[in-house]
Parts: sequence; structure tokens; C-alpha cells
Amino acid sequence: MKTITVKASISYNIYIERGSIKNCGNIIADTVKTRRTAVITDDIVDGLYGKTVTDSLEKAGFSVCKFVFPNGESSKSTETLNQIYTFLCENNITRTDCIIALGGGVVGDITGFAAATFLRGLDYIQIPTTLLAQIDSSVGGKTAIDLPCGKNLVGAFKQPKCVICDSDVLSTLSDEILSDGMAEAIKYGMIRDSRLFDLIASHTLENVSEIIDDIVYSSVSIKRDVVENDEFDTGERMILNFGHTLGHAVESYYNYETYTHGSAVAMGMCMITERECAPEILEKLKNCITAYRLPVKCDAPVHELLKLCSNDKKRESGNINYIVCREIGKAEIKRVTVDEFNRLMEGK
Amino acid sequence: MKTITVKASISYNIYIERGSIKNCGNIIADTVKTRRTAVITDDIVDGLYGKTVTDSLEKAGFSVCKFVFPNGESSKSTETLNQIYTFLCENNITRTDCIIALGGGVVGDITGFAAATFLRGLDYIQIPTTLLAQIDSSVGGKTAIDLPCGKNLVGAFKQPKCVICDSDVLSTLSDEILSDGMAEAIKYGMIRDSRLFDLIASHTLENVSEIIDDIVYSSVSIKRDVVENDEFDTGERMILNFGHTLGHAVESYYNYETYTHGSAVAMGMCMITERECAPEILEKLKNCITAYRLPVKCDAPVHELLKLCSNDKKRESGNINYIVCREIGKAEIKRVTVDEFNRLMEGK
Repeated sequence: MKTITVKASISYNIYIERGSIKNCGNIIADTVKTRRTAVITDDIVDGLYGKTVTDSLEKAGFSVCKFVFPNGESSKSTETLNQIYTFLCENNITRTDCIIALGGGVVGDITGFAAATFLRGLDYIQIPTTLLAQIDSSVGGKTAIDLPCGKNLVGAFKQPKCVICDSDVLSTLSDEILSDGMAEAIKYGMIRDSRLFDLIASHTLENVSEIIDDIVYSSVSIKRDVVENDEFDTGERMILNFGHTLGHAVESYYNYETYTHGSAVAMGMCMITERECAPEILEKLKNCITAYRLPVKCDAPVHELLKLCSNDKKRESGNINYIVCREIGKAEIKRVTVDEFNRLMEGK
Repeated sequence: MKTITVKASISYNIYIERGSIKNCGNIIADTVKTRRTAVITDDIVDGLYGKTVTDSLEKAGFSVCKFVFPNGESSKSTETLNQIYTFLCENNITRTDCIIALGGGVVGDITGFAAATFLRGLDYIQIPTTLLAQIDSSVGGKTAIDLPCGKNLVGAFKQPKCVICDSDVLSTLSDEILSDGMAEAIKYGMIRDSRLFDLIASHTLENVSEIIDDIVYSSVSIKRDVVENDEFDTGERMILNFGHTLGHAVESYYNYETYTHGSAVAMGMCMITERECAPEILEKLKNCITAYRLPVKCDAPVHELLKLCSNDKKRESGNINYIVCREIGKAEIKRVTVDEFNRLMEGK
């Protein structure tokens, strides 16, 4: 088993091993004192892994209750959150118990937020079941729910007690969900690790399973390094936003329906690289993205995307921060006025 | 102006001065960089101080938007919280802006929780307008909302950027609301400061206004000391719960309708003191409580209260922590099994 330790406001381990989900009970029993736990998951993941996880927990001596909500981004809402709170109340979960997020990014984000706020905070554990969740959302302690007026607008920083990544579960993912995660893996290569980028670029969606353990380990390591330096997202952590300022705008323009997060980030990375970098960097990036069946170009009018950029959660009055990789493996944070950003993007 | 500095995960000042509410704009302008702010308050407080605060803020260069909800505990709900989130969205409040809680405990608690979670946290400022809020809820960073299944079940630790206590506003309080706060002031005397207790005991609700500045300053100082040592409520901070384990049970037994929080705490302090302390301590405590028109005895059956105690948010499997003051000015934390606590309370 490979272990990556994150030293944030609390220190915790990310365990990466094939088959670890079957052994999650023992790992969790070694991590927390309580033997009472609530599993939060969605209906699709529950069908695939619910029983495996519950069995493993019970075998390790846990009493387990489980809350299942419908799969999909629309569940990341105040309504589902209130249902989770009620469920935790009804099952007498106390501040010394722990809750487990079993699923992709939606499950991890909303469960983490419930753990951050129920009884002013109790322990939680992430068992991410998508590539995106394993390499991105389950690490770093950002938790959130959506509001009708925007995504991830309510949240908290809450580090998990541990993260259990089983890359075997990635084999059950559809191509679309796998691609979704690969966009973030490509991003890690671009911002911090040219070796990782080259490795990914020398494979395709068809044979990526051969290198998936390396991808998960390398990506999580990069995220760990960045998060340790900037737990509360006030500086360096911004480099993780490469492709995201425009990517979020693309997602929002299409009402989060047409493109996955990964597809939008892929387009966002290409758009900013096209404006700011040498053509050979853009070409390498585009080739890599295409090999993972992700889009390199967006049909949405640029001026519409720009309106949405300046409405981003991370905006500050009048300025926009964005990330550029002039070399593969190196990221720079740029801070310009909204006007300058608009001129750059519109090529004026 | 008297200033008390709290050194928690962020350091902040509590400003105590008569008339400071009229000058809040300048104080806040010296505390935060932004000049955009949202004031959150209730309809009663808005009628009394809304205009004063808005005028002062605008004079100091702030643009101000304001959200007003109905006064009362029933507003400390997920519904009001979602309305606040929507209001903050609609008014384009960003992570670098700040929000202001103007009101009593309900306003402070829900606004603080909104500030802890909207956009994963932004600055907020407390302007407490009741004695209870000035000496208790506005200091220490505990924020919360109620759930249908219980009070304060969802919350976060979030320290304000500053607290502005204007004891002039206490003169507009009804006797009942003033008494409500005096129970906590008596508690501070009991757990930490015999001089404060004696000062309070030598006055009554009728002439307490003569010493109210001393009470606010001394109480806030004690709370500051305790909170600094135990920001996240894992140890010493428990002494602030003197009278509260039983007090919460009393409030809950009467559905939070018959007794104010202060009345319930007053009864809780008497109940535990009667069981554990010398008769002269109990007598002093009862005399003092009576002088502030607070109750010393509760008609609810003890066994019903005990059921509610073991259901407290702060319970851990099988144990109860409670606080005893064998001498005025000194608190001890006691930790017993639920059974032992029940035997103690039922006099068996």
C-alpha cells in the first residue's frame, strides 16, 4: 500500500492500493476511535460498492447506518444537505462518531460539508470512487454544496481523517467519467510535472489503465504539495485553477449540462494557452487532450464566457487571477484587471 | 474606549464603549479593507438601530445592503439561512467583502454561520444588541443554526473580525431580556471571578445599569481568557457550560417556550449546586439569581430532564461532563457515566 501524508491543520494519510475498498473497515478502525459510523453515498455507487463497504466496516466492529441519495450534481443541494442532517440526528450520530463519504465528487463535497457543520464538526473519511474524486476533490479539504444561484457557493475547509483510494474501482467507470478525471491529471502534469505529462501523453484513453496507479499517485502527490503550502487557498493553491477560470464559465454557459467538468477544464486550458504560450506548447496540450477524447475548442462566444468569468466565486472587485503554463510543468499566477483579461481573450 | 483583544486562530478586538454603535462605520473601516458590506439583522433591531448603523457605515464610505428577518428563535433555521445566502448572491457579495451581524444571539449565530460558509468563508463583524449577545454569543466564534430535531445542531467555529459592544443599547432592553443576560453574567462570576459575583449580588435588576459597563467588560474578559485557551471547545471551555447541561434540558422540556435561556441556566446552576456544594454557596447563588428575577427552581420532573441531558449535543457515548463550583469563582469539570449522573441528580 502506498501512503501519502498531508500535513495540513490536521495531518492525515491518503492510502492508495488496489482492492483497498474491501479492507476499508480495518483501515478506518486504525484511524478513528469510534465504532459508530454513517455512510453517505449515492444510488449508483451504493449498487456497486455499498455492500462491500458495509460488510468490511461491520467485520471491523463498526455499527453502520447508511444514507443514499440520487446520483448527480442536482443532489449537491441544500435539500439533500438537510436530509443528511436529519438522518444524522435520527441515527444519534455524536461528535465523537465519524461519517464516510463513499462516491464521486458530489458525494465527497456534500458529505464533507455535512461533516464540517453537523454539531460544529465531526470526523469524516473519503472513499472516492471516480478518478476525478481520487486525484482532486477528495484531497485538500474543500467541501461545498451548490445554491440555485451558483455552484460550490456554500462550503467549508474540512480535512478528512483519511482518504482511501482503490484504483480497482476506476475500472467500472464509463469512458466519459474516466475522461472527466483525465483532464485534471493532464492539468497536474502541465502545472507541476513534465514527466507525468509525457507519460499521460504517450498513452490514450484506451490503454490508460496500464498507468493509472502512477497517475493517481503522482497527481495526489502534487495536490498534497500545493495544499500543504496553502491550505486555505489564499495564494499558491490558485495554480490548481489552471483552465478553471474559463472552464467554470463554459460549464455555466451550458448550464452544467453539455460538458463535464473535465471537458470544460480541457477547453479552458487550451483557450488560455492559445493566448499566452508558444504554439508548440499548445500543440502538445491539444494532442494530449484529444487522446483522452476531451474537447480542445468551445463554440460558446468568448464575450459571453467573459461575462461569466467576472462573476466567478473567486473574483475580487475588478480583478481576475488566472494561471499560465509557458513551459510544461511550470505554472505562473497572473493577476490583471477584468478589462485587461477581456482584451487578452478577445485578442484586442 | 475599552479594548479586549482575543488571540484565537485569528486575533481580533472587542470594543466596549457607550455610543460606539453610532461610530461603527469608522471602527469597521479601520478593521477591514473592503468598502462593501451586507448588514444582517432582525425586524425589531432594525427598527431601533438599522438606520444608525447604515448611516454610520455610509458616512465611512461603505456601500451597504441589508437583509432583515423576523425576530425570534424560529428564524434561526435552514430557511432563513438559505434566504441569507440568496441575498448575498443577489447583492454580489464577494470573498473580500464583509458582513455585519446587528442584533442579539439569533442574528449573531446565523450571520456568523453564513459568514463561515458562504464562499467558504468571508469576514464578519458582530454588533451585539442584547446583554446576552455582548457577553456570551458574540465572543468566541461559535456560530450555529437550529434543526427541527434540535437547537444549534449545525454550526461552525468562525471568529469575527471585531465585536462592537455599545452598552447604551442595553437601556432599550425589556426586563426579561436583561435578566436573560444577567444569568450568564452570574455564571461568569461563579466560575471565575468572585469580585464580579459580589458586585452583581450587591445590586438588583432595578439598579444594575449602574454597573453594567463593569459587568460587560469583566464577563467578556473571562470569556476571552477561556476561549483563547480552548478555541475549539475540547477542554477548558467546558466550564462555560456551568448550569447549561441541565439548563438545555429545561429549555428543551418546555419546547423553548416557557423559559428564556438565562432562566433555564439559572435553574441549572441551582440544581447542580444543590447536589454538589455547601448550603451557603447555594444560598448566595439563589439570592443573587432572585435579585435578577430569575427562577431558582424548576417544576419539570428530574427524570424527564435527565433523559434530555443524555441526548445533549455534547454527549459522548455513555458519559456526561458537568461543571461544579464548590467555591464562588472556581469551576471544576466533572466527567461521570450517565448512570452516575442520574443517581446524583435523583439523590440516590
